[in-house]
Amino acid sequence: VSQSPGDTAALTRVVAFSDRVAEAVERKRSQLVVGLDPRIDLLPVELRGEAVRGRAAGAAAVERFCKGIVDAVAPYAVAVKPQVAFFEALGADGWAALEAVCRYSSEAGLLVIADAKRGDIGSTARAYAAAFLEPRGAEPPLADALTVNPYLGTDSVDPFLAACRRHGAGVFFLVRTSNAGARDIQDAILANGTPVWRHVAELVREWGQDLVGERGISSAGAVVGATVPRVIGEARRAMPQAILLLPGVGTQGASPADVARAFTSGPASALVNASRSVIYAYRDATDDWRGAAGGEAARLAAEIWAAAGW
Amino acid sequence: VSQSPGDTAALTRVVAFSDRVAEAVERKRSQLVVGLDPRIDLLPVELRGEAVRGRAAGAAAVERFCKGIVDAVAPYAVAVKPQVAFFEALGADGWAALEAVCRYSSEAGLLVIADAKRGDIGSTARAYAAAFLEPRGAEPPLADALTVNPYLGTDSVDPFLAACRRHGAGVFFLVRTSNAGARDIQDAILANGTPVWRHVAELVREWGQDLVGERGISSAGAVVGATVPRVIGEARRAMPQAILLLPGVGTQGASPADVARAFTSGPASALVNASRSVIYAYRDATDDWRGAAGGEAARLAAEIWAAAGW
Repeated sequence: VSQSPGDTAALTRVVAFSDRVAEAVERKRSQLVVGLDPRIDLLPVELRGEAVRGRAAGAAAVERFCKGIVDAVAPYAVAVKPQVAFFEALGADGWAALEAVCRYSSEAGLLVIADAKRGDIGSTARAYAAAFLEPRGAEPPLADALTVNPYLGTDSVDPFLAACRRHGAGVFFLVRTSNAGARDIQDAILANGTPVWRHVAELVREWGQDLVGERGISSAGAVVGATVPRVIGEARRAMPQAILLLPGVGTQGASPADVARAFTSGPASALVNASRSVIYAYRDATDDWRGAAGGEAARLAAEIWAAAGW
Repeated sequence: VSQSPGDTAALTRVVAFSDRVAEAVERKRSQLVVGLDPRIDLLPVELRGEAVRGRAAGAAAVERFCKGIVDAVAPYAVAVKPQVAFFEALGADGWAALEAVCRYSSEAGLLVIADAKRGDIGSTARAYAAAFLEPRGAEPPLADALTVNPYLGTDSVDPFLAACRRHGAGVFFLVRTSNAGARDIQDAILANGTPVWRHVAELVREWGQDLVGERGISSAGAVVGATVPRVIGEARRAMPQAILLLPGVGTQGASPADVARAFTSGPASALVNASRSVIYAYRDATDDWRGAAGGEAARLAAEIWAAAGW
């Protein structure tokens, strides 16, 4: 987790998450986020064989795999997005691996977006904010930003927004996801004629209003599936200052051109996530798995940068 | 985690979660679920002093506290509901404590409802189902049931429903929560004049249709806040076979009489959760913390049983 320069106990200048994103995007000329979805059955054979020997061995293999991917993609990506479910499936050993991978990613100069889709009320939401976004004793926060499910409403998101203000954290709210089931609730039509997800987008705009950093973008972002291009334009207009986190590129089918309209609020106003198409690129390549991932990350980052048009 | 009698590799009879709940309710004459929300700052002083010495010490104190509560409430409650956030806030050590507390609760004859409010898509949802509801190698599942956030729709809940069918697990979907922010999205009015949460309730009814056990209730349940009594009656009618999990009793303000209307589908058709009012009962008592929790659990269980009217 990046800390501001000159960080001391006496004089802490908190740099907004959105400003840290903007700085990284400009420096690396990339808006690529690499999703770390470590599925045992997809690991390179040299790691998979070891991983099947139980959860501790699985967690060790996952940690080695993720660190290898981090090394390979660090020059081309601005952030990694560990998918917490795959670590949790390995129990306490998996959580230890998650902590190690997050720390390693920060040290490699990558922002860390924990994809955990948390959401709860009152003191429970505060505990999730503490788990992911707040300093833990002398240690830095586990992640720079967290994905959050907004279904429980304003009081459920307040602790995450407080972590943004106090610790320079970021939040990405689920607004309109990329899966088929998004139709069931997110696309239900409200009495005013707009879908539920548009109403959620308006809430996200309100929640993020006082989190706008020096670059004019907010640390309260939104997850918007890139599989429905029309949605991206609507989401951009509804949340002009939010950083849009766009999954659905690569394996899920959308092209970088589909997402270009997300970038009209600036070069760091959207981030594009690719997971399996990068980290398992070796499956369609003759390259070593690290080399294949690095090559695919470099290719995608350049393609997105060109499509974004900045 | 309870296993069916005569469970062997060759011949496994899976007992539905809803049937296991019904059996426990009738045997214990109780519909009480005790929420395990281990907040360090509220622990009894003998544990709190130790807990502030770091995360490992905090996790050890939390584990000791939860085990003491489990011992105290096991005769009066049918289930415990560990609030996963408070364990996650202690990192990998907290996850190890969660695993230990879940195992201990099962051995004490309590069902375990992991309150994690998970929800994601595709292989990620499958990983969450594996983390909480599926056997882990030779070990039983971490929990008997899981709370799930439905905002991502049908394909996001399928892996959890599959775990219900295959492993006798249960799911409680967030439908209408007890917090003030439930107004923001759950109470938004759809074009057909009903609130979003009623639409979600209809989805939950569909999802649970093929999970109805021998007692006529489904293993796909619903979380319905007990702070709005009118909502409980509506939810009962919309989901006649779902087990309603009702938080909001005790500290959050609703009375057992408020929840009586939830029980019209049978004595095990609703479960009432109380967390802080039970586990921190010692703060308003002269009793030892275990004795205070046991006493409050016994009192609440009897009051709910009487109000339910079975």
